[in-house]
Amino acid sequence: MDTIIKDVLHPTLGRVNVILEGNKIKRVTTDYITDSEQRYEFIDGEGYVMFPSFVDGHAHIDKTVYGLDWYVNDVGYERIDRIVNERDRRARINFNYFEQASRYIELSLKLGVLHMRSHVDIDTQHKLKGLEQVLEARKKYKDLFDLQIVAFPQSGLMVRPGTYELMDEALRMGADVVGGIDPAWIDRDPKGSIDAIFKLAEKHNKPVDIHIHESGDLGAFDLELIIEKTIAMGMQGRVSISHAFCLGMPNDKVTKPLKEKIKNANINIINCYQAYLPAVPPLKELMEMGINIAGGNDDMRDMWTPYGTGDILERMQLISMKNGFRRDEDLELSMTACTFNGAKVMGLENYGIDEGCNANFVLVKGRTISECIVTCPSDRIVFRNGKIIARYGENLF
Amino acid sequence: MDTIIKDVLHPTLGRVNVILEGNKIKRVTTDYITDSEQRYEFIDGEGYVMFPSFVDGHAHIDKTVYGLDWYVNDVGYERIDRIVNERDRRARINFNYFEQASRYIELSLKLGVLHMRSHVDIDTQHKLKGLEQVLEARKKYKDLFDLQIVAFPQSGLMVRPGTYELMDEALRMGADVVGGIDPAWIDRDPKGSIDAIFKLAEKHNKPVDIHIHESGDLGAFDLELIIEKTIAMGMQGRVSISHAFCLGMPNDKVTKPLKEKIKNANINIINCYQAYLPAVPPLKELMEMGINIAGGNDDMRDMWTPYGTGDILERMQLISMKNGFRRDEDLELSMTACTFNGAKVMGLENYGIDEGCNANFVLVKGRTISECIVTCPSDRIVFRNGKIIARYGENLF
Repeated sequence: MDTIIKDVLHPTLGRVNVILEGNKIKRVTTDYITDSEQRYEFIDGEGYVMFPSFVDGHAHIDKTVYGLDWYVNDVGYERIDRIVNERDRRARINFNYFEQASRYIELSLKLGVLHMRSHVDIDTQHKLKGLEQVLEARKKYKDLFDLQIVAFPQSGLMVRPGTYELMDEALRMGADVVGGIDPAWIDRDPKGSIDAIFKLAEKHNKPVDIHIHESGDLGAFDLELIIEKTIAMGMQGRVSISHAFCLGMPNDKVTKPLKEKIKNANINIINCYQAYLPAVPPLKELMEMGINIAGGNDDMRDMWTPYGTGDILERMQLISMKNGFRRDEDLELSMTACTFNGAKVMGLENYGIDEGCNANFVLVKGRTISECIVTCPSDRIVFRNGKIIARYGENLF
Repeated sequence: MDTIIKDVLHPTLGRVNVILEGNKIKRVTTDYITDSEQRYEFIDGEGYVMFPSFVDGHAHIDKTVYGLDWYVNDVGYERIDRIVNERDRRARINFNYFEQASRYIELSLKLGVLHMRSHVDIDTQHKLKGLEQVLEARKKYKDLFDLQIVAFPQSGLMVRPGTYELMDEALRMGADVVGGIDPAWIDRDPKGSIDAIFKLAEKHNKPVDIHIHESGDLGAFDLELIIEKTIAMGMQGRVSISHAFCLGMPNDKVTKPLKEKIKNANINIINCYQAYLPAVPPLKELMEMGINIAGGNDDMRDMWTPYGTGDILERMQLISMKNGFRRDEDLELSMTACTFNGAKVMGLENYGIDEGCNANFVLVKGRTISECIVTCPSDRIVFRNGKIIARYGENLF
């Protein structure tokens, strides 16, 4: 039986009735619809806002310890401490990637996150074990959850011989995107690292997504190298830079031309807007320039950080807060980042909440988009392919 | 009937039994206690962490629009835009301070926030109306909620003639603390503004709490003036500086001696660690120096900002995130800020969760303090004067 949602608040169209047919949104209308249409199931949408299904543009599905014993974090204060700690500890506890990825997916579905781009660590210690198990989890939930996997050389690509070959194999096995990390800070060879990443991308005809944590002028330099390489390889539109904190540095002379170049090379920016960062890319400015900037939860309850619930609505709140948004119209930009812009990064087809789109969406209790973002209610109804799969924080599939 | 809480996790003593008598914590013990003690009611504390009752060290109880129609924020981007917008709009909608303050108190009690220092606006447009009504709300909840009121010249003290006299009257009427705001940015006369504030403090023998948003060297200069005045007036221990963002600026040559002076003058720092701020006082460093630094929710769902739930556990999370805390022992510092350090600012007596303390505390579902901070569960049991006043987010009084 198909469904009619009555009197729901649509972000652009106002109060509407939404008619689903099969796995599609057939009609979105303000016309009166009688309840006597017997071939439909009616859902009362009054008091709910209709969001497109949430997109987590930057996750680490292979890292979470969610659902396990509480992980007491006593790790050192540098990034490399966290990398080494995690790699070693995973070995000691015989980490079950399949089970943890499955938990993360089930949690995501409850919350309305139906699409995720996740990095999966590829390193010479654990080799392809994590990827294999995450691929199994992806298979298990394939009808409900879109998982795009980035082969991610967390421990470095150039500095750990053998990693390149593992990355190559990972892409052959089914990883969708070539990842990378800090060509200078971690890989100690900016040109070499970026060349290697794009070589893999060319060989496998896959897009690129590189973590750039590097701040200031060093980050800016690596961004320039990536932009130049993107253009040289004709990969405009297929490259993403995650984090890109340096775009937030208070030096317009550097950042202004850099932003222009990013726009011209059609590179996506994906940022998670952690509160502690001294500088972050200015969301509103980049959007107004026409740069596609998306958001993600990044680490969620793992050996790196205790924070996170997997909820992308909560991430919209953090993104809004971090950008200093107070006006309703500004808060709504964070919704765009974590829905439409993320969908563009992932290349999702028929995404959205207009007629003809796939019927993947979330009804969230609230009077406005902004109220939903600041309250993050558990009262939400998640639709996948035209069917309710979760309600009030419980999966129903 | 008195109460025994069994098997609860105490932050410093581990798993304990807690015996209440009247409004006091009589014993905290690891000794075995038989359930047959018939004159006690038993509460199963297993799976809960015992927090001292939460202290909101910086609130604006007279501003919230919580519980009203959704407030669409379309205010300009400068602080003065927000000040003027709020002042004018309050007049237009005939804002009911008593009702809103009562709502805020009821919300706080549910969450375990039993103590609050709140600023209340004093200005020449609304005069003492807000204060009068907040005093009424304080009276209504006096057995449950400790509300300390700062007479706060939100629109400026020096720049709006007549404000000084209203502040004087506010302190006579029952405001507990002399407030102030940005002696340079708002009041345009650093020395004049600070002199006026301390003159009122001396006249009424009341402590001082000044908002300093001013950044960089200007903020540092105003901090110096406040420190000098504190010492000259012998008011060490009775002065608080709210926000003091300038302490986070990346210039050790300025901030290091300034922090030393703050410590020597025994001045409290109260910061709310909003995510968007480019610089904030480093919580851990100030604590390790011995400076009393407290936290608060600041604006909560008002005409300034849409954010906030009134939950101080959630504020502990934000404080931890903003300070880049990942280790469990670091997250616990944010609990100290929002409990013990806030209690010190407010001068609360017999505060804490040891034997002999007033039986004001919150049992929060979780395995560790840090887990409670990152999950902010609604499963919590609030004790006031030895009795349960709220459970699972519902008030029971």
